[in-house]
Amino acid sequence: MSGLPETTMLLLNRDGSRLDLTLNNPERRNALSGEMVDELHQVLDAIAPDRSIRTVVMRGAGGMFCAGGDIKGFKAGFQADADPKAIAASNRTFGDFLIKLNNLPQVVVMLVEGAAMGGGLGLVCVSDVAIATAETRFSMTETSLGIPPAQIAPFVAERLGVTQARRLMLTGARFKGGTAAELGLVHFCEADTAALEARLDEVLGEIDRCAPGANAATKDIVLTSRREPLAATLDMAADHFAACMLSDEGREGVGAFLEKRKARWIERQ
Amino acid sequence: MSGLPETTMLLLNRDGSRLDLTLNNPERRNALSGEMVDELHQVLDAIAPDRSIRTVVMRGAGGMFCAGGDIKGFKAGFQADADPKAIAASNRTFGDFLIKLNNLPQVVVMLVEGAAMGGGLGLVCVSDVAIATAETRFSMTETSLGIPPAQIAPFVAERLGVTQARRLMLTGARFKGGTAAELGLVHFCEADTAALEARLDEVLGEIDRCAPGANAATKDIVLTSRREPLAATLDMAADHFAACMLSDEGREGVGAFLEKRKARWIERQ
Amino acid sequence: MSGLPETTMLLLNRDGSRLDLTLNNPERRNALSGEMVDELHQVLDAIAPDRSIRTVVMRGAGGMFCAGGDIKGFKAGFQADADPKAIAASNRTFGDFLIKLNNLPQVVVMLVEGAAMGGGLGLVCVSDVAIATAETRFSMTETSLGIPPAQIAPFVAERLGVTQARRLMLTGARFKGGTAAELGLVHFCEADTAALEARLDEVLGEIDRCAPGANAATKDIVLTSRREPLAATLDMAADHFAACMLSDEGREGVGAFLEKRKARWIERQ
Repeated sequence: MSGLPETTMLLLNRDGSRLDLTLNNPERRNALSGEMVDELHQVLDAIAPDRSIRTVVMRGAGGMFCAGGDIKGFKAGFQADADPKAIAASNRTFGDFLIKLNNLPQVVVMLVEGAAMGGGLGLVCVSDVAIATAETRFSMTETSLGIPPAQIAPFVAERLGVTQARRLMLTGARFKGGTAAELGLVHFCEADTAALEARLDEVLGEIDRCAPGANAATKDIVLTSRREPLAATLDMAADHFAACMLSDEGREGVGAFLEKRKARWIERQ
Repeated sequence: MSGLPETTMLLLNRDGSRLDLTLNNPERRNALSGEMVDELHQVLDAIAPDRSIRTVVMRGAGGMFCAGGDIKGFKAGFQADADPKAIAASNRTFGDFLIKLNNLPQVVVMLVEGAAMGGGLGLVCVSDVAIATAETRFSMTETSLGIPPAQIAPFVAERLGVTQARRLMLTGARFKGGTAAELGLVHFCEADTAALEARLDEVLGEIDRCAPGANAATKDIVLTSRREPLAATLDMAADHFAACMLSDEGREGVGAFLEKRKARWIERQ
Repeated sequence: MSGLPETTMLLLNRDGSRLDLTLNNPERRNALSGEMVDELHQVLDAIAPDRSIRTVVMRGAGGMFCAGGDIKGFKAGFQADADPKAIAASNRTFGDFLIKLNNLPQVVVMLVEGAAMGGGLGLVCVSDVAIATAETRFSMTETSLGIPPAQIAPFVAERLGVTQARRLMLTGARFKGGTAAELGLVHFCEADTAALEARLDEVLGEIDRCAPGANAATKDIVLTSRREPLAATLDMAADHFAACMLSDEGREGVGAFLEKRKARWIERQ
């Protein structure tokens, strides 16, 4: 595990091309404290250039994904100090983290058990594959605290569409895994943790058949298409296509297809 | 009700933090005449800065939400005068109204009974919460009249996605409340008017738990995220977050949460 | 059929205001070879200005919509020549074709039988109405070949939203017609080919009630709204509205509505 930072709020476990990243402050329901977000930044910076890590599996310790912001910290820190510039800067850091996680070249799979509230729901919005259970609870109740769901709002609006985003934020509505799947917040809602683990195995098997460099290029193209003009996206996509076609991966993948054999990068059976 | 304009095509009723706004030309099925749109502009201008109004509940008189444009007026006015600049300017006014309603700082709840056709369907697209009944009829049949659903098109495409928008507009398809909920045009489809009123009560109760200033900030962030680059949205969101955190609302909301009591702004039981 | 190009990879059949366009290389499962894409470009250029063609019905010969890219051609052409600029330019041509098809003034209805893989799935993403059967198979397995689904990615992300697009592309997931309808990739999933043809008849009947010029203007407005600022879209929409209102179509359509008769452009019973 050389290259991975030391962390106290996160558990890291490397297994082949998979990195398990577990939010690990269960007494605080894995709330997104400043310390935890700092460590998340460090981990993403360390792994982003490493194509030998193909999949990141995120979950929360203790069967609880993430309860959101650190509200005690809001009062003890932000409101006691009363420095609006410092508050805005701290808040903005979480937006930078969401951008970084959204754009991570690896495939990010989230296992959303227990609850995903506020900022925790924001995390789910930047996953590539999200799997919840029927009992997982979701909500954005920030405005009941007198504050907006500020940094997550653009990611929620992109994930759910503005129509559902505005209703859920302005009413603080609570919902569970089945509704989360209907809304497109998660991709799969499973009956229980065993079924969630089975779905994870299936998804990891699918990802193993995909070439890591091609997946990284694809993620770059898809996310670019949401912020750049169409013609510019198609231009960069064509360059990615040509580079991948002539890469070792592209030659191996096309060759394996025509020879009806497995590509070299498929580890699992 | 000081501050609210005199209106002849709209019924206005203020009840605490709630304003009921009823389209009131049932003989014309609440068609969006120039006079009605002018009055709507005036009402929105009057209430936008008023944080004591937290929710606007819109519906149509006579159990009919809104039949859309004033087609007799098209012939008698537009086609008789044959002045393309005047027609375009009049049409454009409706787009400005939709922008204004979409961006209203208050939470806008629409009760969509009877029918929402053409421009009436456009209204639904800028609501924060929309509740229909199973019998409510929807369609955009403009092109069967030889004209495009011009000013509503961008709002429909944002609400439903371009895929459903293009089909519905280019085929003039008719559908009811259940399909409207599946398409994401409305949030709730209820069996009848009694169930619709019960859903309204539930939604109003949720909104009452949310702080009005935080809700206004949230709506601003969500809508900004759809037209501005991500980094700019996150910057303005961080400023909103800091201002709300240090506001009376933010101190009251965080304090109430930590003290496990209701926040001051919760009126209803 | 004057004005339509000679084609070898496409079957063209004109019937009144309808043009049937059939991908016709069933031995290769209607793969999108360079030759086929060239012919598609020519056909679209020929018909785009012709308002007497109101609907284009696309399908694949042999009950197979389109298997995607020409993988043998990837090896024999791209990888043998190893010219990245030529590969990128060839790839980019397909993006230009998707733009042209997406913006075609006619209503484009696709009958998606058999399978729509890779680039074939990309085609579906730019249709106005898409009808599949329950047995139609869909997937984007490009990254299992070591290459990205490059030119289709922006159109898939627009069609399905980025959340579903990223999962489907990064996992190469396979799914059928029912899921395609739930995802919004197609509008209708029918039990079999007979039901698909019945749905086509219903849709064609709806399109016949819509004025062709107004439909072309509407499609222009909807697609413009996805790439231009809102105010600019509303301005151009108002100009379209005025021009249509004073056109023969607009006078006929409004008159027919007020006189409770069918408009002149309705051919079918």
